[in-house]
Amino acid sequence: MTDRQPLKELGQQLRVDAVRAADAAGSGHPTSSMSAADLMAVLASEHLQYDFDSPEHSGNDHLIFSKGHASLLLYSLYKACGVVSDDELLRYRRLGSPLEGHPTPRLPWVDVATGSLGQGLPIGAGVALAGAELDRLPYRVWVLCGDSELAEGSVWEAMEYAGQAGLANLTAILDINRLGQRGPTRHGWDLDAYRRRVEAFGWHTVEIDGHDVDEIDSAYRQAREETDRPTAIIARTVKGAGVSAVADQEGAHGKPLSDAEQAIAELGGRRDLRIEVSRPESGGVRQRERPGGRQVELPTFAVGEEVATRDAFGQAVSAIGGARPDTVVLDGEVADSTRAKFFAEQHPDRFFEFYIAEQQMVAAAVGLQVRGWTPYAATFAAFLARAYDFIRMAAVSRADINLVGSHAGVSIGEDGPSQMGLEDIAALRAVHNSVVLHPSDANSAARLTAGMAEHDGVSYLRTLRGKTPVLYGPEEGFEIGGSKVLRSSSNDRVTVVGAGVTVHEALAAADALAGEGIGVRVVDAYSIKPVDAPTLRAAAAETGHVITVEDHWPEGGLGDAVLDAFADTRSTPRTMKLAATGMPASATPQEQLREAGIDAGAIEAAVRGILRQEREPAAAGS
Amino acid sequence: MTDRQPLKELGQQLRVDAVRAADAAGSGHPTSSMSAADLMAVLASEHLQYDFDSPEHSGNDHLIFSKGHASLLLYSLYKACGVVSDDELLRYRRLGSPLEGHPTPRLPWVDVATGSLGQGLPIGAGVALAGAELDRLPYRVWVLCGDSELAEGSVWEAMEYAGQAGLANLTAILDINRLGQRGPTRHGWDLDAYRRRVEAFGWHTVEIDGHDVDEIDSAYRQAREETDRPTAIIARTVKGAGVSAVADQEGAHGKPLSDAEQAIAELGGRRDLRIEVSRPESGGVRQRERPGGRQVELPTFAVGEEVATRDAFGQAVSAIGGARPDTVVLDGEVADSTRAKFFAEQHPDRFFEFYIAEQQMVAAAVGLQVRGWTPYAATFAAFLARAYDFIRMAAVSRADINLVGSHAGVSIGEDGPSQMGLEDIAALRAVHNSVVLHPSDANSAARLTAGMAEHDGVSYLRTLRGKTPVLYGPEEGFEIGGSKVLRSSSNDRVTVVGAGVTVHEALAAADALAGEGIGVRVVDAYSIKPVDAPTLRAAAAETGHVITVEDHWPEGGLGDAVLDAFADTRSTPRTMKLAATGMPASATPQEQLREAGIDAGAIEAAVRGILRQEREPAAAGS
Repeated sequence: MTDRQPLKELGQQLRVDAVRAADAAGSGHPTSSMSAADLMAVLASEHLQYDFDSPEHSGNDHLIFSKGHASLLLYSLYKACGVVSDDELLRYRRLGSPLEGHPTPRLPWVDVATGSLGQGLPIGAGVALAGAELDRLPYRVWVLCGDSELAEGSVWEAMEYAGQAGLANLTAILDINRLGQRGPTRHGWDLDAYRRRVEAFGWHTVEIDGHDVDEIDSAYRQAREETDRPTAIIARTVKGAGVSAVADQEGAHGKPLSDAEQAIAELGGRRDLRIEVSRPESGGVRQRERPGGRQVELPTFAVGEEVATRDAFGQAVSAIGGARPDTVVLDGEVADSTRAKFFAEQHPDRFFEFYIAEQQMVAAAVGLQVRGWTPYAATFAAFLARAYDFIRMAAVSRADINLVGSHAGVSIGEDGPSQMGLEDIAALRAVHNSVVLHPSDANSAARLTAGMAEHDGVSYLRTLRGKTPVLYGPEEGFEIGGSKVLRSSSNDRVTVVGAGVTVHEALAAADALAGEGIGVRVVDAYSIKPVDAPTLRAAAAETGHVITVEDHWPEGGLGDAVLDAFADTRSTPRTMKLAATGMPASATPQEQLREAGIDAGAIEAAVRGILRQEREPAAAGS
Repeated sequence: MTDRQPLKELGQQLRVDAVRAADAAGSGHPTSSMSAADLMAVLASEHLQYDFDSPEHSGNDHLIFSKGHASLLLYSLYKACGVVSDDELLRYRRLGSPLEGHPTPRLPWVDVATGSLGQGLPIGAGVALAGAELDRLPYRVWVLCGDSELAEGSVWEAMEYAGQAGLANLTAILDINRLGQRGPTRHGWDLDAYRRRVEAFGWHTVEIDGHDVDEIDSAYRQAREETDRPTAIIARTVKGAGVSAVADQEGAHGKPLSDAEQAIAELGGRRDLRIEVSRPESGGVRQRERPGGRQVELPTFAVGEEVATRDAFGQAVSAIGGARPDTVVLDGEVADSTRAKFFAEQHPDRFFEFYIAEQQMVAAAVGLQVRGWTPYAATFAAFLARAYDFIRMAAVSRADINLVGSHAGVSIGEDGPSQMGLEDIAALRAVHNSVVLHPSDANSAARLTAGMAEHDGVSYLRTLRGKTPVLYGPEEGFEIGGSKVLRSSSNDRVTVVGAGVTVHEALAAADALAGEGIGVRVVDAYSIKPVDAPTLRAAAAETGHVITVEDHWPEGGLGDAVLDAFADTRSTPRTMKLAATGMPASATPQEQLREAGIDAGAIEAAVRGILRQEREPAAAGS
């Protein structure tokens, strides 16, 4: 770098365009964009390697705006790179514009959605992991972080993970502009406070003036030369830099400048500089074009054999890993419990341990799928709650990830409620475009483990701790959106819909009642989202009454999914929901099911109650 | 401390009892308990101040087992303190026993449930905050942490928070036993790795041999003498210490010892030592007995005025704070947006800033309510997802906390999906014993802000970013479990149920249709959990058809709550759910409602569609 003036001019141009676009939109975060303008001007001009004609070029660097509210800066940068027109920029935040308030992959150069702070760095660590361990390509991952978001624990999960993994291809650019949304940040401009923390986690750090293009350039150079550790560039910057009315002022967050014209004049007016971004020197294959792999030979289990669905998952994902080289498995230090260990034993090079850091685990899954890998991330169903914001955002990122939650429900037994997934179905159903699967036996679990990867979006498989008898032959098919009718006769008077362990309780109840001549239809609703509405409606129409039974809280789970299938139909059946209601404590699995009122006895009682009511006249108010 | 032998003996006794109880239960985590036995023996004998006859004594120390799976150690300690009998200990993990697999407040000496790792320290920081800033009592908070859980980001949120707040009354006891559930931890016995990290966050650290009672005693003494900083005692320990068959062995996690008899013999056999725990020197008032405060004069708003419900919340909680001295407000650096800032301006001494660390914010709320304070924790509805595991566990803790989520739904407008709470109702409904409130106007929001604190458990108030017209007079009452019928006539043909912004869309649709002589009943279901089933059933019975409309994903929200109210009734109405389906982008609030299909136009179209269908014969399959 010889002439620094063009870079300074470019920084000013990015500021001007941020101010202009915010002004046109009437909203946005120009001051948060202005602090990092010089950092991005130097990065794009001198260090980034990216082929804008081919966003999926396998050698491309990845630039992630963890501070997604600085979208104005990102889009102004894209304009300078020639891929966004000025007209498009001025349609920022308008209906139909892909230039959203916070970046999403509706733009081909955006890998993941950001805007929920503290997510870009852990996701970037996942992309860097792909580069270092899987793609084995020299692309770099650059993550622009705000200072406020460094309060998020997820950032420190990423610092720990990337530091220990020695991800030298990862650079965090910390835009320390001193001011958060409502006032000063915890550490203000105390760059050393950040340095001490980041260094303690094993990172290389460089402290710079974030508006000095020479210092910025030198820092990137050091980051690129570092071979053993990730680098954090700790940049002292000024929020709203370049415009005296807002520079380093409180109360100027998240709104257009009151006098845009004056600000643009102070910034030196409009410019039309173009950045020629370097193209990557290596790579070239499109990320998604991986060898397809062999046909998967899934494990099979004999009908009647007792096998936990978590075991079936573990064996299946291991088999899938053998056939499909794009399969990777992520663990939160419970692989022995989730049975992800079976994959680890067979494919140690594609198994990644994140220790007890579920946010980083899910973030890494999102990062790996950016590079075309097919991740399965497994922990206890209960502990996916720890990563719920990452799962929510994965949907905004249009990410294809497979989540597996073991130890579902009260049926785990003695360990008690802290370990029981009892809200996971509700949480995962409420993720945009998600799939929620809860098999009751080993063969269906194995099939669905393979099937879930075919779904575009967030897929969730809920598995059981305890063994259940195998119900289905190995040849049986299981589709997303399907179900199985396990008991059916022409004189069925009630339909019982279960999933997972409650299918077996339903079968026991049905068999007991059949002995008394009471016909009960049993449906295994292994696909809870989408639920098999046609089958459920047909069963309801034929039997009149429906009972749902689930090892989950009553809200948002299987029962609600079934009610939804009946909602907008002409003959809505009377439906009774059985679910866990009281807070469980310790007990054996069978005691837990009984105490929760979701065992065979409770189902039998519910069926009898319905048939008794049928014989009685309607009471007032019911 | 002069004679160390009794302390060593006590450590062995705790190990023996842990082994015995695990053996009796057939499950549990004896080896994880054995590593910390000496640490707890010295703490309880020499440093803890606690009156077991009076668990709510305001001067009591707080001992939190963040590694809740070491419950065997905690219960063995309680036995040594004379509050649990040997018979009770041997009923560990049995049905009906309060000695659950992981500790819960069913035991009066347990403040909060643990077992989801990484929660005890942030909650303990909240208790310590109460001691330092609110109670102003010299009690101490001792938190026993495992080494595996130090991978959780939430631990580092707590390290940052407590370090910066200078909570010298907080001591973290880090049980570095080298082995996690499935193998070695990330840092093994590298105590310096932990020391560097913890010190970087401003803590005082002491490295010790966790089995040397002198070193342990000295470390506690240093912690008690420290006046400016929290202390972390970094203790090198041996998992399964004292029993050669399991000591420092992989594969011995989370199960009883295979030869308990031999282990007990190796540990020196049964003992019956008693610990005389020191009683606190100060305090004495029971925690819950706080001055009741004055009658709250809530803010009122004129009908027709345009006020955002978030503003009403802010004004209301500030008024509540003026009348009730037990009210505290917690912020995740968005108090300007949630309007918690109104409270901050009036009651700065009871307003606590956690920066962008939602897990620590909710954990601190749980910790503060341990001490009898009434917390309101507010952030964007979307970002409560970050703390979902803490909210789930708050329910297991039987914690009384008030959560407030602003910026609900697509109606926020331009900022886009990362900022929109669209799954919050589903997530919060699926929390045990929770309440979910979503007012549509300022007066109801103010009333419900006060009312939510009356509920025992997790209460959630969902507020709007944009202004809505005031619908209700200031004298109107709003109950948890209530609703309001806003339009009603004898010839209503459809009931539209809304909440929040969709109430206003429903009113616009009803008024437009009324002009055509089509009667539409409108219900404001401001209490989504519990939902007002009697009112909804009556409306459905009278009008025949129901349409729910919500600014939320279709799963688990208002629509599902309404369907649930109809589920087990004799005449289940046909119900159509309107909710956000496609992934939103940027647009104005009104465009967002239209694009999501939940605005007045969509409601009108749905009503017309239903009335059209009514006139047509039933189609096959519907």
